[in-house]
This record gives sequence, structure tokens and C-alpha cells, in this order.
Amino acid sequence: MSGPAHRRVQVPPGVQCFVGDEVRRRRAIEDIATGVFLGWDYEEIIPPLFDYADVFEGEALASKTYSFVARDGSVLALRPDFTSLLAKIAAGRLRERPSPLRLYYSGEVVRYEPVRAGRQSELYQMGLEHMGGDARAADAEVVAIAVECLERLGASEFVLALGHVGVFSGLVEAAGLDPQRVETLRERVEARDAAGVRALVHATPAARDVAEGLERLATASGGIETLSAVAPAVAACPKARAALEELRTVVEALSAAGLGPRLALDLAEVRGLDYYTGLVFRVFAPGLGFEVGGGGRYDTLLARFGRPLPAVGFMLGLDRVALLLARQGRLAGAPRPASEPVAAKELRSGIASAVALRALGARIRFGDGGQP
Amino acid sequence: MSGPAHRRVQVPPGVQCFVGDEVRRRRAIEDIATGVFLGWDYEEIIPPLFDYADVFEGEALASKTYSFVARDGSVLALRPDFTSLLAKIAAGRLRERPSPLRLYYSGEVVRYEPVRAGRQSELYQMGLEHMGGDARAADAEVVAIAVECLERLGASEFVLALGHVGVFSGLVEAAGLDPQRVETLRERVEARDAAGVRALVHATPAARDVAEGLERLATASGGIETLSAVAPAVAACPKARAALEELRTVVEALSAAGLGPRLALDLAEVRGLDYYTGLVFRVFAPGLGFEVGGGGRYDTLLARFGRPLPAVGFMLGLDRVALLLARQGRLAGAPRPASEPVAAKELRSGIASAVALRALGARIRFGDGGQP
Repeated sequence: MSGPAHRRVQVPPGVQCFVGDEVRRRRAIEDIATGVFLGWDYEEIIPPLFDYADVFEGEALASKTYSFVARDGSVLALRPDFTSLLAKIAAGRLRERPSPLRLYYSGEVVRYEPVRAGRQSELYQMGLEHMGGDARAADAEVVAIAVECLERLGASEFVLALGHVGVFSGLVEAAGLDPQRVETLRERVEARDAAGVRALVHATPAARDVAEGLERLATASGGIETLSAVAPAVAACPKARAALEELRTVVEALSAAGLGPRLALDLAEVRGLDYYTGLVFRVFAPGLGFEVGGGGRYDTLLARFGRPLPAVGFMLGLDRVALLLARQGRLAGAPRPASEPVAAKELRSGIASAVALRALGARIRFGDGGQP
Repeated sequence: MSGPAHRRVQVPPGVQCFVGDEVRRRRAIEDIATGVFLGWDYEEIIPPLFDYADVFEGEALASKTYSFVARDGSVLALRPDFTSLLAKIAAGRLRERPSPLRLYYSGEVVRYEPVRAGRQSELYQMGLEHMGGDARAADAEVVAIAVECLERLGASEFVLALGHVGVFSGLVEAAGLDPQRVETLRERVEARDAAGVRALVHATPAARDVAEGLERLATASGGIETLSAVAPAVAACPKARAALEELRTVVEALSAAGLGPRLALDLAEVRGLDYYTGLVFRVFAPGLGFEVGGGGRYDTLLARFGRPLPAVGFMLGLDRVALLLARQGRLAGAPRPASEPVAAKELRSGIASAVALRALGARIRFGDGGQP
């Protein structure tokens, strides 16, 4: 290939392109996941690829959006995730629909990732949002759906690590910390650095029991017993205690439904998109250095668009799920189905045969195989 | 809803958003069309949403592309159609795959349309490309697939209007017209304005027979007999005659296969994307003022990317197909399937019942219906 032609076939960093076997495997995964969504009575929504940039403002993803100027001068952005977009649609186009709304999506998001990071700019996500309705029932439903998806996909040994951002935010509110310090503290909790947390909170006027509660979070991960182990450390802070009780209600209900073995607790899970307000979770599997999906409760996002409804959702990254299944030997090859060759040497009789075979439902391949 | 909240839920002009019944109908159409593509042994490709803007350069659509600057300074564009993108992929990523390549796609394209036109910016297209292989067999195959799609979708009274851009381009080449005059002439032919064509060509040094050939094109539409009716008018121009013979070969083969009643000829069909070089066609139906799809042969596009292969393809616009089927009463309602309500009042027993019913394959709705 000549130099200029070679340059012409280069692709921008991070864009996706799938063909053949890869597409068939991806479609198989998509069909299973969306089949589960439908089974819980979620309806598909096909939202726009882009919207006004301010829909995605104030999010952790804002710095990663690809924005561009429309010819009428407005600033548009390619969707960096689905949740904000669905919140806006629920509050706008679907405002007359009674809640709870159960909506699912399956499609691409686009995020700017530094070239050196080697990460995808285009990501395919499958997920759902439950808006309105009883909050604990919705929390339990969404976690149960996430577990069912992974089980039906054939994944093994996966774990959903559950947390609740209200435990951390209740404690920092009680401690009266300034926002700058909260962010530093959040980083230390995320880093599971108990000593770092201790050093930070002891340099503040936080009451001793609140300080101890924060310190405890950094190491509060493990089985369901973690909830009881942490309880004394947050007992003095009503908001944190209430958050922990919310989480306990959901986890106990899911355990009663037999999903306990799939659940873990991780109260140090305090990062995540900034719209999360309650339960949060991530899906992990051994040997995979990143989550394959996650979700959480976002009770204030819809109010931004004029329809205050509590909501919870989750999503799975299709590439990551495919990688997990491949690593676990659960991603069967998806060979091209056999087709019947139909010679085209005599074009009239050939195309007549092809059309006749198709009318009978045959899968055909017209005119190749040595008979052009 | 308050003023600011109302502004926050406005959507940019022309973007798509489908939900519920609309999505189920669209998915049903998509499944039928892609089932036909698979039946002719086409493989799905999922190409990127955007690429370097120069991939789409030099096309009639260039003025309609949404472009934006990536953070590394390169100019990207949202795909305005699939054909150029697939040509680039066939020449690049898939360059080691032996031809013929049979690829299909189903997804959105994005085009800038003036707000006042009230047209969609986001369009959903289903289509395919056949690259390499015997050209006449591929032409016949692609037209036969287009017919089969519309028949299986339940459309009635549709017609594929076939032309060949080589008839017009052969004649203007023989006439030695300058490019400016060619474009004026193209407009008059498209407008089926025989008098206008006559006035233009008689003001040129074109030989009389060539001038008469061009004039004839403007009225050369009708049934298959049009081919014979036009033949004498282009007899003096070898390139135009060869193009007409190519078209005849394909049309006669398709007629032999029983597709004659679905075909019409229209040699005044000389517009279209500028990459077309041979057979072109559009799908029309009575009472619909625009085509629902179309395609054609583009034998020079792949060479631009360094892999000279002849190619032919077609696409259907999903919205337009849906509108056609609705007008013809062929678009059945797609109600939400029934689901079994599962009470969530007692969360533990409720979610346990829900999970157990799902394990049995039931479609359920958890926690609504008066029992939040």
C-alpha cells in the first residue's frame, strides 16, 4: 500500500470497529443482557447520540465530553453516558408518563481519553434506569438484575461490591469539613489508606466518634458481616447510620433471595459519578483489574430537569463483559453460519435460483467460490 | 414545569429519541431486514461513529457533516453515511480479507440539515456493501436483496427505479462539454425537462446524435421496454451504449428471476452521491413523496483508500420504511408484552419471589401496581 493510501486508512485513536465473529459474539451478549432487562419489564429507549453540552455539565465526565458547535451556534456534546440523557428525557419528552419508569438502553457512548492511555473513546454500554417508585425495592431490583445478567451470560466468580455514598457524606457533614478537605479525604478513603484518613481527620475539629467512623470506612470491606462490624463506628452520626440501614435492608433482602454469595460490601467505595446519592455498586471478577459495570442511586439528578424523582440504575460495559467471558472460557466462538453456494456464471438462471432458494428460507452465497 | 427547567429539557433540532412501541416496531423492521442480509451471507460490521473528516471529503454530503476538532488537533466528523467508512475499512483494517467482501450495517448517521427544513439530523440506516467479485452478478444480487427486504417487510406497490450514470456520463464525455455545463445539463435531465436539455445541447458543438441521446434521457423512464426505446438514441456513443447494455444484462436477469414487476427504468436518474459510477436505483412507493432507500455501484471509491475494488451497495432509511409500512397499514402495533406483577411490600419475600420467577423464565414487574 502506498504511503498516502496508508495514511488514508488510519483510524482516530480509540474508535471502535467490529466485524464478523466479534460482532456475532457481541450481539449474543447484547441479546442475553437485554433479554434480562425485558424480563423485568424494562422498555428499550433509543436516545439521541448528542445533546446540548449543558445536559452533561457538572459531571465527573464533563472534562471527557467531545463537544462541537452546531451551525446555529449552540454547543452540542456526544453523549458521554446515558444516565443524564435518560434523566432529561424522563423529565421532558416522557413527563406525562406515570412513574415508576423502567427504561433500558444499549448503545455507544463517546469519551475523550488521552491517547497515551490506550483506552477506548467509543464504548458500548448496556444498562437501565429505574425512576420513581419505592426506593429500597428499586435498589434490590437493580442489583438482582445485574446479578442475573452476569449469571445468564455464563460469568463465574463475579462479585458485586456494594457501598452507600451516604455513609461517607453523612460523616463528613457531621465533621463539618470544608469541601477541599472532603476531596482529599475521599481520595484517602478510596485508597483504603486508614493511616492517611486518621492523619487527616485528627487535624480537624471533628468529634472523636465521627473521626473514628471515617477511619473505619477505609477498611470496611468484606462479607455481609461488614455491615454489623461498621455499625458501632457510625452510631453517633444519624445520617451515616440511616444510610447504613438502607444498605442493610437491601443486602438482607437480596441475601434472602439467595444472592448473598454474589455480594460483597465495600464502604470505602466513595468515588463514582458525582450524581450518586445512595447505594452504589461495581461488578468485579478475579483476575480482571477493572470493573465490568456498576451503578447506583441518584435521587437529585432528575430535579435538575424539573421532575424530581428518585432513581437508580446500572450499566455493563460490553467490551469488558466480553473480555471477562473470554478469560473465563465462556465466550464461545461464533462462526459464520454455513451458506449454500449458488453459481452466477449464467446470470439469469443463477439469480433465479438464488431468489427461489431465498424464498424457501435458505441461506445462500451467490456467485463466489470459483464461479465468479 | 418552570421556565428554566423547560429550557433544560429542550432537545437540539433533528435529533432522534424513540421509546416503547416506536422502538419495538423499529426493532421488528431491523430484524427482518438484517435477517435478509444474513440470508445472502452478509456479515455485520459495527463501524466507528466518527472518523477523520477527510474520509467523507469530496462527497455530496461534505457540506452536511458535523465536524469537530479532537484534542490532538485533528478534524473529526460524525459519519454522514456508511459507504465511505466501509470502503475505508475494507481497504484498511480488512485489507487481508479476500474479496468479495459482503458487509452489512444497521445504525445512525448524522447530517446537518437546516433547521427550517424540519428534517432529521440523526438518521437510522440499514444497508450493505458488496465489494469485489463479478460486477453484474453483484448488481443483480444487491437489487434482489432490496426487493426481498421490502417484500418480507410487507410493503406493497413499491418500485425500484433503475438507472445507470454511465449513460449520461458517456454522452457528456462524447459531447466534450465543460464541467460547468455538465452540471447545468445534469439539473435539466434530473428535472425531466427535455426542452431545457435541447436548448442547452444545441448551444454546444455536440454532434447531433449525441445531443439527441441526451435529450432522450430526460424522458427515458417507464417499464423494461424503455431500454430498447432508448437504445437507438445512444447507439452512436460507445460508452453510453456499453452502460445501457450493462443495465440491460442486470434487468433481464432480474426479470428472469421473477422480479420484473418490481422494477422500473429511469435513465434521467443522474444525480445521487458523486461516487456512483454504474447502476443506480431508488426505492419508491405511491403516495410517498421521497424514496425509502436506494443504492448503486461505486467502482472508484475504494481506490481512494488504496485497494481498488469495484463495489455496489444499497441502504434503507428505517424511518422512511416505517412511515411507508404505516401508510400501507402494514405496521402492526407492538404492545408491551404482559408481565406478572410481584408485590414488594415485604421486600425480602418479594425480591425472593421475583428472583425465583425470573429463574423460571417469567416476565415480571416488581413492586408497582398499587403495592409500592
